[in-house]
Amino acid sequence: MKDGKYNIAVVGATGAVGIKMLEVIEKRKFPVGEITLLASENSAGKKIRFRKKLLQVRTLNQDSFRNIDIALFSAGAGISRDYAGTAVNSGAVVIDNSSYYRNDPDVPLVVPEINPEDIFKHKGIISNPNCTTAIMLTALYPVYRTAGIKKIIVSTYQSVSGAGMRGVSELEDQVKAISLGLKPDVSKFPHKIAYNLIPQIDTFTADGYTKEEKKMLNETRKILHDGKIKVSSTCVRVPVRTAHSMAVTFTTGKYIPVDEVRRLLSVSEGIRVLDDPEKLLYPMPVNSEGNYDCFAGRIRKDIALRNGISMWVCGDQLLKGAALNAVQIAEKLIANLRTA
Amino acid sequence: MKDGKYNIAVVGATGAVGIKMLEVIEKRKFPVGEITLLASENSAGKKIRFRKKLLQVRTLNQDSFRNIDIALFSAGAGISRDYAGTAVNSGAVVIDNSSYYRNDPDVPLVVPEINPEDIFKHKGIISNPNCTTAIMLTALYPVYRTAGIKKIIVSTYQSVSGAGMRGVSELEDQVKAISLGLKPDVSKFPHKIAYNLIPQIDTFTADGYTKEEKKMLNETRKILHDGKIKVSSTCVRVPVRTAHSMAVTFTTGKYIPVDEVRRLLSVSEGIRVLDDPEKLLYPMPVNSEGNYDCFAGRIRKDIALRNGISMWVCGDQLLKGAALNAVQIAEKLIANLRTA
Repeated sequence: MKDGKYNIAVVGATGAVGIKMLEVIEKRKFPVGEITLLASENSAGKKIRFRKKLLQVRTLNQDSFRNIDIALFSAGAGISRDYAGTAVNSGAVVIDNSSYYRNDPDVPLVVPEINPEDIFKHKGIISNPNCTTAIMLTALYPVYRTAGIKKIIVSTYQSVSGAGMRGVSELEDQVKAISLGLKPDVSKFPHKIAYNLIPQIDTFTADGYTKEEKKMLNETRKILHDGKIKVSSTCVRVPVRTAHSMAVTFTTGKYIPVDEVRRLLSVSEGIRVLDDPEKLLYPMPVNSEGNYDCFAGRIRKDIALRNGISMWVCGDQLLKGAALNAVQIAEKLIANLRTA
Repeated sequence: MKDGKYNIAVVGATGAVGIKMLEVIEKRKFPVGEITLLASENSAGKKIRFRKKLLQVRTLNQDSFRNIDIALFSAGAGISRDYAGTAVNSGAVVIDNSSYYRNDPDVPLVVPEINPEDIFKHKGIISNPNCTTAIMLTALYPVYRTAGIKKIIVSTYQSVSGAGMRGVSELEDQVKAISLGLKPDVSKFPHKIAYNLIPQIDTFTADGYTKEEKKMLNETRKILHDGKIKVSSTCVRVPVRTAHSMAVTFTTGKYIPVDEVRRLLSVSEGIRVLDDPEKLLYPMPVNSEGNYDCFAGRIRKDIALRNGISMWVCGDQLLKGAALNAVQIAEKLIANLRTA
């Protein structure tokens, strides 16, 4: 830190999330001194615009973190494993978007609207949650805080950019191939995603849930500091470019009227209510993409579960589910350093 | 009926379901005497191949049902309202794919694998269920019969052909427009469906559920003759051409192990188990389209609900959700007439 400005490194700067991190840093006027863009050798040399300047992407190596105050990692679990420690030893605070440190008891897992206080328990690394979990909890937390939540049953509709740039290009290439009557190539996803649905995100665990589905349980518990909350999920990839959607049914600890849920969400940070069915207004990927806020709609009393509420939630998973959440953590971090 | 053959009318013969009805009648060697293809004036004169002959589509009118034994209706609720009575008065049995008569206590609502005996309670009209309900219940009934089912929470992923041919062409036209950088036209669906999701199918009711979602509750109760079962659903349109998918979580009346659920489904009619995650095998639209059977996979113990099971179900909604189910009803009907 120098003159109230911070040297930032973005690891994975050419990726779908990395690019959004740069956008968010710029738009929110984060006080940046120097910014260092890091990526694998393949992407080194590429140029990315940041505050009207073209910056060159450098190859990530063990010397990349000298004089860095905050390192934002979004280059996969392997890179975080191999480089986050180096960054911390170089004096940086790491905000890690990968899954690698999320379950580490020494690493806080933070959604700033929910558990900002956990940021300051860090020992060098702070984890950013799984995108779907971050969006879901941003929508549910106002209710959780007021009435408690016991059980969540959620089905997701996750866009291809959640799998990175190659997810987007695979969908586009497949749509193009199909329109030409050609057989589409499948490489990023386990099956064709164009005009299809894949009920698998990440690999499977022994009990039949995928790792993605388990993240929704384990990360929810860690963020809320609630080891009892139950989360059952089905995570599905859909042929949508950006924004994750989910049908969420949950039971509250005590009865709460639907109107009160709607009111709580409408006055809370990070979540907006878009719920006017008569006017055909409800959240969709197309109206969520590019927004910092998540959206909740179709809010109704669940007709199957006691004290149940059902709703439909969408959020831009590259923003609230990743880049925005990471930058929000950085903002809280420096606000505290400044007032300290 | 003459020489063991039946005169059939297909109302809505040029529609997405009507065409499948003709295919299914032909493939299953239904004993057809004469077949009459009926549609609106717009489609009259079109020719459709049936058993190697090109048949001309005729304009539906009040005289269309003379000498018809079985009339398969799939031209929307308004047409069923205006013409089903005429068909019955002309001596035909109507098997109606529209929603118009489904809640009528005098009209049986039938999934042949579940309540075939209800067919013979008809007073001229037999209703075919909503496509999503038919697929879901085909998958759940083996468990329902053995262990009971108390509550169902289901999120659907419904393909555009569920909205008919115009649903398919709208998705295709929008994808094409977007690829050319043009603004896509929206007419059939309330919003753009290409690369998007629409959490609305049919219109809204006062409690915030759509009619489609209410159908899943009311039709489930009628088919199972179980006024207590609770079904909460979120019905979502997805940019998939054919086959409806759903994430289903349900609680059973008594404990049933996951392996027993899998075994029951694998030995039951109309449903196949496709559940080998290690081999990336699970139901998807792409492997369900064109199949008479529905598919269940991702079968696992639900981690949120007591006696809960979660699974993922896909089925071709033009077949089991519509045309096949209607023809199966007709088959049962004539089998009984023959043995009577």
